[in-house]
Amino acid sequence: MTSHDRLALSLVTEPGDARLRDLLRAHDHERVLLAITGGTRLAGVRLPEAWLERGRQLDGLIDQTLTAAEATGLRWITPGHKHWPRQLDDLDHALPLQGTAGAPLGLWVRGSADLAELCRKAAAIVGARDCTTYGAECASELGSDVADAGWTVVSGAAYGIDVCAHRGALAMSKPTVAVLACGADIDYPRAHAALLGRIAEDGVVVSEQAPSAGPMKRRFLSRNRIIAALSAGTVVIEAALRSGSLNTLNWADQLGRVTMGVPGPVTSQASGGVHAALRDGKAILVTSGSHVVEELGGLGSEPVSLEIVKTEFDRLSSAARVTLDGLDWRQNRSLLEITAAVRLGADEVREALALLERQGLAGRSGAGWVLIRRADTA
Amino acid sequence: MTSHDRLALSLVTEPGDARLRDLLRAHDHERVLLAITGGTRLAGVRLPEAWLERGRQLDGLIDQTLTAAEATGLRWITPGHKHWPRQLDDLDHALPLQGTAGAPLGLWVRGSADLAELCRKAAAIVGARDCTTYGAECASELGSDVADAGWTVVSGAAYGIDVCAHRGALAMSKPTVAVLACGADIDYPRAHAALLGRIAEDGVVVSEQAPSAGPMKRRFLSRNRIIAALSAGTVVIEAALRSGSLNTLNWADQLGRVTMGVPGPVTSQASGGVHAALRDGKAILVTSGSHVVEELGGLGSEPVSLEIVKTEFDRLSSAARVTLDGLDWRQNRSLLEITAAVRLGADEVREALALLERQGLAGRSGAGWVLIRRADTA
Repeated sequence: MTSHDRLALSLVTEPGDARLRDLLRAHDHERVLLAITGGTRLAGVRLPEAWLERGRQLDGLIDQTLTAAEATGLRWITPGHKHWPRQLDDLDHALPLQGTAGAPLGLWVRGSADLAELCRKAAAIVGARDCTTYGAECASELGSDVADAGWTVVSGAAYGIDVCAHRGALAMSKPTVAVLACGADIDYPRAHAALLGRIAEDGVVVSEQAPSAGPMKRRFLSRNRIIAALSAGTVVIEAALRSGSLNTLNWADQLGRVTMGVPGPVTSQASGGVHAALRDGKAILVTSGSHVVEELGGLGSEPVSLEIVKTEFDRLSSAARVTLDGLDWRQNRSLLEITAAVRLGADEVREALALLERQGLAGRSGAGWVLIRRADTA
Repeated sequence: MTSHDRLALSLVTEPGDARLRDLLRAHDHERVLLAITGGTRLAGVRLPEAWLERGRQLDGLIDQTLTAAEATGLRWITPGHKHWPRQLDDLDHALPLQGTAGAPLGLWVRGSADLAELCRKAAAIVGARDCTTYGAECASELGSDVADAGWTVVSGAAYGIDVCAHRGALAMSKPTVAVLACGADIDYPRAHAALLGRIAEDGVVVSEQAPSAGPMKRRFLSRNRIIAALSAGTVVIEAALRSGSLNTLNWADQLGRVTMGVPGPVTSQASGGVHAALRDGKAILVTSGSHVVEELGGLGSEPVSLEIVKTEFDRLSSAARVTLDGLDWRQNRSLLEITAAVRLGADEVREALALLERQGLAGRSGAGWVLIRRADTA
């Protein structure tokens, strides 16, 4: 399919509409386009009225779109272009979610960076718009850490978690990718105009929607599939039980990507959807950027070490540890009393006391022994 | 094994010592006891010196123990007693953890309640001594909710999570079980004297340690196995990476009991060990008492409903929802503009607008339409 045909199809239909993907599976795309523009009929297929209406205005739509794109500096890339991230094709084989399916016909790109290269190692970080300060902190930190580990942060530039994740990456001077539900030329939300401009400098702002297309509710759903598909995995931070971010997680799941969730206080409704996903086994619990990188199996990622630092206490012999427990600060105890209390043999206790004395942990006091200092225990 | 022989063995050895369990598996208990008290030798067995030393003082130890028990009102119960919780026997078949193994030889009980009946449906709630206010809240609430659902809360009466869990149960006027690492007559920690007294009124305070035995470090480890074994499942709330509460969770795991963890902020070290356990799949994430009851598969437990309340928005037709998205508060839009924006057919939009108008969501304004009120969306 030529880049031009892809553009035409994306303008007459609603990008991400599962019906289009199904149609293109069954019929040659040129015949589909011809049918939509009114040239022919596809036997047995009833095309949506909306497509036919727009099909009749196709030439105007294309002119208008190309003019807008030129004015705002957007590029249209399609499969075959060297900046096209091939992992998007996985969407063609995934099941639809809420009427949305299929790889995007193409992407409008703001910024000159190479999207394919940026997304060779990419992690999506998404979550609630109305996040808490806890969630915001987590997102910034995760964004920074993941970016610093060489992974590109992909998100939706929305208020809340999204913007914190982007900012976290930018704070480490790393490029980041924003996928919008409206035209890539639109600063949405408006408050993020400067941020979107900054993202497009080293990274890119992309959308499958035509320039100047508005952010409709269902476009957020179809946008989410692109965020999930571009990334090797999706992390969700703060999502209430009915949050759109869970839709991105579902897409990641549908695509066989790694699905991750950052837990929060159980008293916080903002984390309710994340906890439900973790509970249902729909996501893996992660608490840090290194966990994320570990899950993504990133090249050069160091496995997270859970090895516990050995304390002075650990280095004592077992008998010495037990004997230490039988000593007191205030009260001196006889060898017999200590032996009775700790239930070791008298010889073992005698030997242990000598060791503890050498280490400055126990001392003689009168006829007995006292605790001088506890070994540092965790 | 008679109750008296069990008492004798528990006094000459350290309760929970894996070596004793192994010995009793290989040899008749009467011969073991005789060997420890110096009467005979067990071929090929080298008994710990400490046991032999105490074995020589056995009669005195028994007298002293029974006198102390009578003075403090403790009862000694052993397998076969009708208050003996049979699930403790599972410990005889579990692998040792840190040198601890085996069912307790018997239990000292403060309080007259029936331990077996109390633990027919029991849930352990354990966690950090130095918990945060968040953890304390979770523990109180979980303790209350689990108790209210008919499950007995079992814990260790320690500072922090333990005491909050007990108090949560008591606040619902439900009995609770405290398992101590020292003698059941000892108020440990001292600050919990009144609480332990209250627990023993309707519930029980128990220990495998003899009356007046002090709380040694390794006794906490062996005590933990009893908490885990008495309960159908263990919930851990706030445990740092190297917390003793994880030992209880490990015991529960070893015993095939349900293992659960309450997540917290990832910024809180207090939840580090819980998150690690959840991440490793060593525990199931729970956020409420009803989750705990659900996991324990309790009789009469209601499955947690995650069903989302349908909003006005959900009840609109799909075309109406999409059309609603194409309307604006401030700007009136023509049918053509709306149709172009939402990419539906003109007829569909016309029909949708009529519906939205009837519902008071959209209104005519001049030649176009405006948004009057958003349908309530979640």
